[in-house]
Amino acid sequence: MPELPKNIKTAIIIGAGNVAWHLGNALQRRDIKIIQVIGRSLNSTQSLAVELNTEFTVDLNQIRKDADIYIVSVTDDAITDVIQNLNLPDSLIVHTSGSTPLSVFDGYFKNYGVLYPLQTFTKNRSIDFSLVPFFIEANSDKNLEKIYLLAKGISDRVVTADSATRLKLHIAAVFACNFTNYMYCLAEDILKKNNIDYSLLHPLILETALKALDMKPALAQTGPAVRKNRNVIKKHLEILENEPYLKKIYALLTESIQHKLVNE
Amino acid sequence: MPELPKNIKTAIIIGAGNVAWHLGNALQRRDIKIIQVIGRSLNSTQSLAVELNTEFTVDLNQIRKDADIYIVSVTDDAITDVIQNLNLPDSLIVHTSGSTPLSVFDGYFKNYGVLYPLQTFTKNRSIDFSLVPFFIEANSDKNLEKIYLLAKGISDRVVTADSATRLKLHIAAVFACNFTNYMYCLAEDILKKNNIDYSLLHPLILETALKALDMKPALAQTGPAVRKNRNVIKKHLEILENEPYLKKIYALLTESIQHKLVNE
Repeated sequence: MPELPKNIKTAIIIGAGNVAWHLGNALQRRDIKIIQVIGRSLNSTQSLAVELNTEFTVDLNQIRKDADIYIVSVTDDAITDVIQNLNLPDSLIVHTSGSTPLSVFDGYFKNYGVLYPLQTFTKNRSIDFSLVPFFIEANSDKNLEKIYLLAKGISDRVVTADSATRLKLHIAAVFACNFTNYMYCLAEDILKKNNIDYSLLHPLILETALKALDMKPALAQTGPAVRKNRNVIKKHLEILENEPYLKKIYALLTESIQHKLVNE
Repeated sequence: MPELPKNIKTAIIIGAGNVAWHLGNALQRRDIKIIQVIGRSLNSTQSLAVELNTEFTVDLNQIRKDADIYIVSVTDDAITDVIQNLNLPDSLIVHTSGSTPLSVFDGYFKNYGVLYPLQTFTKNRSIDFSLVPFFIEANSDKNLEKIYLLAKGISDRVVTADSATRLKLHIAAVFACNFTNYMYCLAEDILKKNNIDYSLLHPLILETALKALDMKPALAQTGPAVRKNRNVIKKHLEILENEPYLKKIYALLTESIQHKLVNE
């Protein structure tokens, strides 16, 4: 592991959600002391502070002024509000959002950047940070280098990316992760309604993912849509007749698979 | 592993696709000799016959009459046609389809059943069959026992399921596997169009799947939809403006996630 930048020894985390939780732990394991956690919800802010063995507050005005870096890991729609209410113009600050541009700091800070981890985080579930790709950006080469060294301290895969590229990465991640997980939800639902054990799907879920790491997903596509099994598709849509969302999703994805893959 | 039923020593496989390929190999590893492969396409039928070191034909009339079991692994829409054109009324026959009822054999055969493996198969990609759940059904207890012992010879997880249940399993599998893989396709597409390396998504894809094996997927849901990040969702839809399918899929899945998970 490379040396951490000597000027980043302490951090404050604003936010107490899944990313804040994991990033705080990862940084502290690499001897970046989290000196304060600031959140909206008393419960989760206190929990994270206990986890990190540090101070906490739910009042943004009580923020300490002496951290080497401020990490804003709040829900996207709240980032602007947090930035506007911090009065630390000279401090180095980053956010961890995929879809918020670097320019959100313009006019409020002099030293700023982005530190976006491309991973899905759930509290109390451990993650090997060395494998998590980090996408970084900053308003100056000097700040970029600081953020690069910080990120390199916890991950082997640090890439610079501008805000437009990061936005595309985030959209791709929504498909590859959030929508994929929702497909698992829907599958579990179908089984539950029919008293079938969800764990019967485990080998299928795992193999589908492993295949996507080994080959182009378009070449791994199987199932009624890509095989154009009209009778099967018709039967499935009939069974889903009373489940409007399931039926709409089934029909749209089938149509899209056929449009995209069958004619390729 | 349990003993294989003494009366099933030879099998004929009708079909030369992914399931035929994998099942043929798995059975032969357990000393069920595949004595003939019958397919529609000369190329893939010959390839499978070479793989299994056995005879082949593309003419259904040339089928051998002396196999202990006939396994129909053709695309769903062709099963009826195959069954109607086989003249082996006394032989034991199974199909491997999730969505085709047992009754498809009615009037054509006296001894029949279903042997449905819940897995996604791609040629030349090895699968640990002991972990693949098999769902079986038959027209008599005696035939069910034979099929059970055959399936138990290659898998540790053999479950009896009627045709209605198997259909639900198949629909769940379409969501958990086929639609999931399509989400990977779409994500890869978005990255490709922006010259971003698809492998950056690998850790995310794997972690999303691993989480779904450890917890209820509804509890693992992350992302803008479940967080109700209206600004992010709006931004993503704007970026997808010129990709009608991507935009429709993004909008429908986001709406469905919010309808299902946010109010739960």
